[in-house]
Amino acid sequence: MSPGRLETFADGVFAIAATLLILNVDTQVGEHVDDLGETLLEIWPSYIGYVVSFVTIGIIWINHHTVMAQIGKVDRLFLLLNIGLLLCVAFIPFPTRLVTEHFRSDGARAAALVYGVTATAAAIFFSAIWFYASVGARLLRDDHDPRIVKGITRSYLPGPWIYLAATLVAFVSPTVSIVLFGAIAVFYVLESSWFGRSRQKG
Amino acid sequence: MSPGRLETFADGVFAIAATLLILNVDTQVGEHVDDLGETLLEIWPSYIGYVVSFVTIGIIWINHHTVMAQIGKVDRLFLLLNIGLLLCVAFIPFPTRLVTEHFRSDGARAAALVYGVTATAAAIFFSAIWFYASVGARLLRDDHDPRIVKGITRSYLPGPWIYLAATLVAFVSPTVSIVLFGAIAVFYVLESSWFGRSRQKG
Amino acid sequence: MSPGRLETFADGVFAIAATLLILNVDTQVGEHVDDLGETLLEIWPSYIGYVVSFVTIGIIWINHHTVMAQIGKVDRLFLLLNIGLLLCVAFIPFPTRLVTEHFRSDGARAAALVYGVTATAAAIFFSAIWFYASVGARLLRDDHDPRIVKGITRSYLPGPWIYLAATLVAFVSPTVSIVLFGAIAVFYVLESSWFGRSRQKG
Amino acid sequence: MSPGRLETFADGVFAIAATLLILNVDTQVGEHVDDLGETLLEIWPSYIGYVVSFVTIGIIWINHHTVMAQIGKVDRLFLLLNIGLLLCVAFIPFPTRLVTEHFRSDGARAAALVYGVTATAAAIFFSAIWFYASVGARLLRDDHDPRIVKGITRSYLPGPWIYLAATLVAFVSPTVSIVLFGAIAVFYVLESSWFGRSRQKG
Repeated sequence: MSPGRLETFADGVFAIAATLLILNVDTQVGEHVDDLGETLLEIWPSYIGYVVSFVTIGIIWINHHTVMAQIGKVDRLFLLLNIGLLLCVAFIPFPTRLVTEHFRSDGARAAALVYGVTATAAAIFFSAIWFYASVGARLLRDDHDPRIVKGITRSYLPGPWIYLAATLVAFVSPTVSIVLFGAIAVFYVLESSWFGRSRQKG
Repeated sequence: MSPGRLETFADGVFAIAATLLILNVDTQVGEHVDDLGETLLEIWPSYIGYVVSFVTIGIIWINHHTVMAQIGKVDRLFLLLNIGLLLCVAFIPFPTRLVTEHFRSDGARAAALVYGVTATAAAIFFSAIWFYASVGARLLRDDHDPRIVKGITRSYLPGPWIYLAATLVAFVSPTVSIVLFGAIAVFYVLESSWFGRSRQKG
Repeated sequence: MSPGRLETFADGVFAIAATLLILNVDTQVGEHVDDLGETLLEIWPSYIGYVVSFVTIGIIWINHHTVMAQIGKVDRLFLLLNIGLLLCVAFIPFPTRLVTEHFRSDGARAAALVYGVTATAAAIFFSAIWFYASVGARLLRDDHDPRIVKGITRSYLPGPWIYLAATLVAFVSPTVSIVLFGAIAVFYVLESSWFGRSRQKG
Repeated sequence: MSPGRLETFADGVFAIAATLLILNVDTQVGEHVDDLGETLLEIWPSYIGYVVSFVTIGIIWINHHTVMAQIGKVDRLFLLLNIGLLLCVAFIPFPTRLVTEHFRSDGARAAALVYGVTATAAAIFFSAIWFYASVGARLLRDDHDPRIVKGITRSYLPGPWIYLAATLVAFVSPTVSIVLFGAIAVFYVLESSWFGRSRQKG
């Protein structure tokens, strides 16, 4: 089996999950509103939720891209692990809506927990994909770069723990937990654009 | 004609049908809920429905992948049979919602039947695709592996009958029928990850 | 420019437009229904609309596939004509819902007209794509098969007229017009599977 | 990293964002309408909004195509800039609905501003993508055509300023601003089909 078709399917799910996020913003504005300008300002959490989740899905896509560049063949268990990851990614629009609608109300804790569990599960599947493929170079390309493989292993190791920690914070303070999810996305963007570049040069 | 473009279209439908499943979960939580945490616990059937149908579509995608790897050319009847399969796959989100919303009410039987008929029709089209392509090696690659071809034939033969049986059970007990649909998905996951691997080694 | 990326974009639109058709069926069943079985039988027009429009989009996809197999390069006007075609294809879910909801009421004529105008516009763009590419072999592959090119020209010439005629019938009888749209889809399926095969052999 | 997978993901987002536009038209017609024909005539702004935004997304896709044809490699910052562009493109269905629903009411100014800010942001990301890739030929193919590169630079330079100007007009007259957004799309179509062809010949 060739990895190409997995990429087509995965990219489809990434693209659709990201694009469906706009429906969360759209439903915030009913057909009949008194003052459209005011309503559009009031729903600012929707915009932040849209950007954070879109960028989060985008980062997962970039990382998937990085992993697949080292993969030479796939087997059925590898495909199943990918379906697990995509199942979590396609779930993201739902907790995104919960968080943006409820973060100022009593429902903030429940919303933050659902978002956090989804992100943690995605990170666990992502790590599982990588370790299943890379341990013993099981599915790696014959000409894979050991230095890049080691770099990926080092940078993906903390992922599930970071998201788990941010999720557990929700039991103390949902607001801090939600801010952390945004901060993690910002961190990954900076890390991708800055450290990522220096790593490629190094 | 080359098989590549069929795969792009098929992967698109698989990816969208799977990703749209989240809308079934999303609509279970209205904009104004008293206790978000409780509501999120009450809608647990939605989560199971989401996972079962996502994995089912994923398994069909993996199997389609396995079949296409043996295909060397396509003709118009083969494309039409694939459109029939995709028509059934894209239908899955609808009976998934019916089952998760009605399995505890009088509508359980009707919901289970629609789910079962959809799955059975998908399995019939899948078998038709394979037998049309493989009988007399009509559309197979010149370098196809006869052992793999025989293995696919053997493992796809029971598919429609299994789903038909689970569907007919709904006349006696809708609940058992619905549990069977979940069990079939679990079985295919285990079969894919475990037996699938040993088959590749064997 | 290479034709490959046009195919990725086009296949995406075909796949999404076809898969979104399920939303038309889904919205016919509210969350709280008294007798689910009865409701599911009452909405039979939705199923027919789903199948006819899914197959129609599938046939357009197959024909697009056939055309692109003869194309060697693309230019910007060719891409724009394709965007015009895709704009019509992505519109199809809307008139499909109108027809299935209104064909037994006063709105049947308006619904049939919108469906017909959409289908006719799609057929016109399809013809424009082919004639722009094939006249003087402007965009054809250097090794195109003149017999296949002539065959495509002959079989696509009547498309817009057939749909225009079926559309105009709606002024006399919307019901006949709607039946004709279904019949055209059935005809194309038969033509694809039967004549299509003999043409490939001939 | 190869540019191919960026194209698959980007084409997915372009295709889905364009296809989702039909939902804006669809929601304008409720399930129970007295006079379907009249309703379908009354919602004419929806059709124009659908066509303008579909074509706008199509033009961005064509231009992305043109840029990628000159790209030989991608890095993570380039991927992030593309995610920024796609984030804006996937946002377009929302302001499209706002403009078509509110352009005859008090909300016209707010709607025009959201549409304009989205289009301007997309144009800024598009320029950033190109300048990041082309300055010093950072990511260009080794065999890129300097004349085409110079042509792209010249034709994309004014994009953000044109959309910014049309957006600012909304403070004086929302109607003129909205008409300008339509006119820009028409201009790009004409420019693509006519000047585009002569540029390719020249």
